[in-house]
Amino acid sequence: MSREDALARDAADPLAAFRGSVVRHDPELIYLDGNSLGMLPVATRDRLAHVIDDEWGGELIRGWHHWFDLPGAVGDRLGTTLLGADAGQVLVCDTITVNLFKLAWAAMAARPGRRVIVTDARNFPTDRYVLQGVAEHRGGSVRFVDTDPVHGIDAGTLAGALDDDVALVELSHVDYRSGVLADLPALTRLVHDCGALMLWDLAHSAGAVPIDLDQHGVDLAVGCSYKYLNAGPGAPGFLYVNRPLVEQLESPIRGWWGQRDPFDMDLPYQPAPGIARFLSGSQSVPGLYAVDSGIDSLETAGLPALRAKSMALTSYLVDLADEWLVPLGFQLRSPRDSQRRGGHVVLAHPDAHRIGVAAVRDALVVPDVRPPDLIRLAPVPLTTSYTDVYDGLMRIRELVAAGGHEAHDVSSLRVT
Amino acid sequence: MSREDALARDAADPLAAFRGSVVRHDPELIYLDGNSLGMLPVATRDRLAHVIDDEWGGELIRGWHHWFDLPGAVGDRLGTTLLGADAGQVLVCDTITVNLFKLAWAAMAARPGRRVIVTDARNFPTDRYVLQGVAEHRGGSVRFVDTDPVHGIDAGTLAGALDDDVALVELSHVDYRSGVLADLPALTRLVHDCGALMLWDLAHSAGAVPIDLDQHGVDLAVGCSYKYLNAGPGAPGFLYVNRPLVEQLESPIRGWWGQRDPFDMDLPYQPAPGIARFLSGSQSVPGLYAVDSGIDSLETAGLPALRAKSMALTSYLVDLADEWLVPLGFQLRSPRDSQRRGGHVVLAHPDAHRIGVAAVRDALVVPDVRPPDLIRLAPVPLTTSYTDVYDGLMRIRELVAAGGHEAHDVSSLRVT
Repeated sequence: MSREDALARDAADPLAAFRGSVVRHDPELIYLDGNSLGMLPVATRDRLAHVIDDEWGGELIRGWHHWFDLPGAVGDRLGTTLLGADAGQVLVCDTITVNLFKLAWAAMAARPGRRVIVTDARNFPTDRYVLQGVAEHRGGSVRFVDTDPVHGIDAGTLAGALDDDVALVELSHVDYRSGVLADLPALTRLVHDCGALMLWDLAHSAGAVPIDLDQHGVDLAVGCSYKYLNAGPGAPGFLYVNRPLVEQLESPIRGWWGQRDPFDMDLPYQPAPGIARFLSGSQSVPGLYAVDSGIDSLETAGLPALRAKSMALTSYLVDLADEWLVPLGFQLRSPRDSQRRGGHVVLAHPDAHRIGVAAVRDALVVPDVRPPDLIRLAPVPLTTSYTDVYDGLMRIRELVAAGGHEAHDVSSLRVT
Repeated sequence: MSREDALARDAADPLAAFRGSVVRHDPELIYLDGNSLGMLPVATRDRLAHVIDDEWGGELIRGWHHWFDLPGAVGDRLGTTLLGADAGQVLVCDTITVNLFKLAWAAMAARPGRRVIVTDARNFPTDRYVLQGVAEHRGGSVRFVDTDPVHGIDAGTLAGALDDDVALVELSHVDYRSGVLADLPALTRLVHDCGALMLWDLAHSAGAVPIDLDQHGVDLAVGCSYKYLNAGPGAPGFLYVNRPLVEQLESPIRGWWGQRDPFDMDLPYQPAPGIARFLSGSQSVPGLYAVDSGIDSLETAGLPALRAKSMALTSYLVDLADEWLVPLGFQLRSPRDSQRRGGHVVLAHPDAHRIGVAAVRDALVVPDVRPPDLIRLAPVPLTTSYTDVYDGLMRIRELVAAGGHEAHDVSSLRVT
C-alpha cells in the first residue's frame, strides 16, 4: 500500500498513455466521477471545433446530406464496437429517457394481452417513472421487485415476479447505487421463458463492461453517452432493437425522420423499415460527432483491456478503502468480487454528503454522492491511473481523519 | 431594379452591421436558407469553444450546478425576448417533435370527453404524424382541414371543423410551404370559443415575426432553434405552456428532471410544480448555450426592426422575381402582402429541384426546394443584405435563362 507500488502499477499499465488523451485544466484534480460525466477527450474538443466552424459554419444546409445518416452510422459503430450488436440495430438519438419511453411503449403494444411491466424497486428514478407512465397510459401497472442493493437482482427473485401477464421486464445492467453487474444472459433467458420482452438500461455499463446484446438475444436496450462514452453534458442517448423484433414494433412518437420516405412530404405515416422507425426529429449534430469521437479511444484501447484495467483499479480502490477508510466509518456497498461490479465502487458513510463536498472543494478529489449516505468512486480505466486512486483515497482519508468535512454546509446543494 | 439601388438600400439599413456577425467561409456564397438552418454566429462559435473546453473540460461534473437551470433560464429569455411570454412558461429542451408529442398528449388528457385533434391537412409531416399517433393512442382521431396553401387557414374554414368533440387544434404559425402567416389571435379565439385548447407550431416564426403568446391567451406552443435562432444543426426544441393551464397538464414522458424533487431519488413520481414538469432527462448543454447565444443578436437588433427589414427584403425579392423570374416560368406561391408572410418567399417552377441543385453547385446561391415544385428563399434580416437578394436572384435568373440547370441529375438527391 505504498505510493511506489501505485507508480509501479502505472508503469506496467498498457493503457497508461490514454490518461493524456483528455483535457486537464488542473493537473492536481483527481476526477473519479466519469460514471456521471466523462472527461473531455482532446480529440473531441478539436473535432467539435471543426464540426461547428467548418461543417455548420461552412457547409450550412448542405451538411445535412451527410449529417442525416449520423444517428444510424454512429449507432452502428457503437453497436459493433461496444454493445455486441450487428449493424442496423442501434440508433444514437434523443435522450435515454425519451428512448426508454419509446421502447417500453412499443414493447407493451407488441404484447397486447399482457399488462404488467416488471422492474427493480431500486432502479434509477427515470426508469421507474417512465415505466409507470407507460404502464398507466396503457391501462396496466408496474410490478416492483425488491432486491438487495449490493447483491442486485438474482434469477430466483425475478422468477417470482414473472407470469403470463408480464409484457416487459426492464432492468439496469449496472446498478447506479452499488455498481453491481446484473447477470444479463441468465435474466434475459428467464424473461423470454415467460414470453415477455427484455429491455436493458445500459447507462452505467456501455463502454465500461463487455456487452453482447445479439449473442444473448436481448430484445431492447437504451443507454446514454455522457458517462463512459465521454460525449459531454447532455449528449445523446441511444437505443437498440433486436432485428427480428423491429418490424413488430412502432414508435409512439411519429416524426418525419421515422417515416418510410422522409422526403416525400405528402405521404400518410408509415414507419420506416428497420430501426429507423425509432427516429423522430432532427438530432444534435455536434452531439452525434461527440459520441463518434468518444468511441474512437475506447475502440483503440479495446474493451477487454479496458475491462481488465477497470477490475484491477476498482479492486485496488477497494483494498485501499478497507485499509484507510473503513476505520473512519466507511462501509463498502459494492460487491467484493470484481467480476460482479461495473466501473464504479460505492462506499457508505453517515456524513457522505459533507465528505463529497469537502473532497471537491478542499481536497481536489471529485467523487459523487447519492442520498442518503453513498459516495460513488469511478476510476475510469481510460483516464485514471493507479496513482490517481492512491492519491485520491489518501486525500479523502486525510480529510475525514482531520474532520475537514464537518464545517461544510450542504443544505442548499444539489446532488448530481 | 439596379444594383446601385440595392447598395443604396443597404447603406440605409440600420441592421447592416449584423451581416458581419456570422461566420462566412466563402464570401461569394449567398445563403437564402436560414429558414432551414440558420448561419453560425461568430459569438456562438467562440462561446461553444469556451463551453466545451472550459465548462465541460474544466468544471466537469461540477458544471451541473449551473447547467441544471439552463432549460428554464434560456426558455425564460426566449419567451420574454421573442415569444411574448412571461418567465416560467417556456422550456428549451428535447426536439420540436418530442415537445409536440408531450403537449398534444397532455392536451388530450386534459379534455377527457373530447376525442378529436384538428390540424391543417397540409401541415408539416411531423405535425400530422405526431398528432395522428397521439390521437390513435388515446382512442381518438385527427380531423384534417383542407386549406388553400397560399391563402392559409382562415377563420371560416376552421370554424367549420370545430365542435364539442375537439380537444385540441394544432396549426403552424407560418406555413413551411408558402410562408403564409396565420391569424394567430383570431384563430386562437375561435378555438377557445369551442372549448378546445390551441397549440401553435412556431418552427417558422420564432425569431422571424413578433409573437405575443400571453397577450392572445395561447395555450400551448412548440418550436425549434436551428432556423431563425441560429443555434445549429439539431439544436434543441422549445415548448410553451400558459401558466394557468400548466398545473392541469402532465407530461406523458416522466423523467427525473420533471419530478417534484429530482434529487430525492426515493420518491414516487409527482410532477414538478409549473413548467418544469415537462422536462424529462439531461439536455445538451452546448445546445442550450447555442440557443442562448443565438438570442443575443436577435435581442440586440430588436424584433420590430428585424420584422421591418424582413418585410422589406421579402417584398424586394418578390419584386425582383416578378421582373426576372416570372418570365422564365416561375410563379409566386406566397402571399403578395408582406404583412401576411413570415420570413420566407416561395416560388414554384416545374424544374424546381434541378434549379435548386444547380443554384447551389454552379451559382453559389443556396435556396431550398420542397417537392413537388417549390423553391423557398429566405432573406433573413440579420444576415442578408439587399445586395445579396439582388445578386442571388440575378444568378438564378442567369442560370435558368441559359438552361444551366437542365443537365443536373437529381434522382439520388435528398431534399432537406
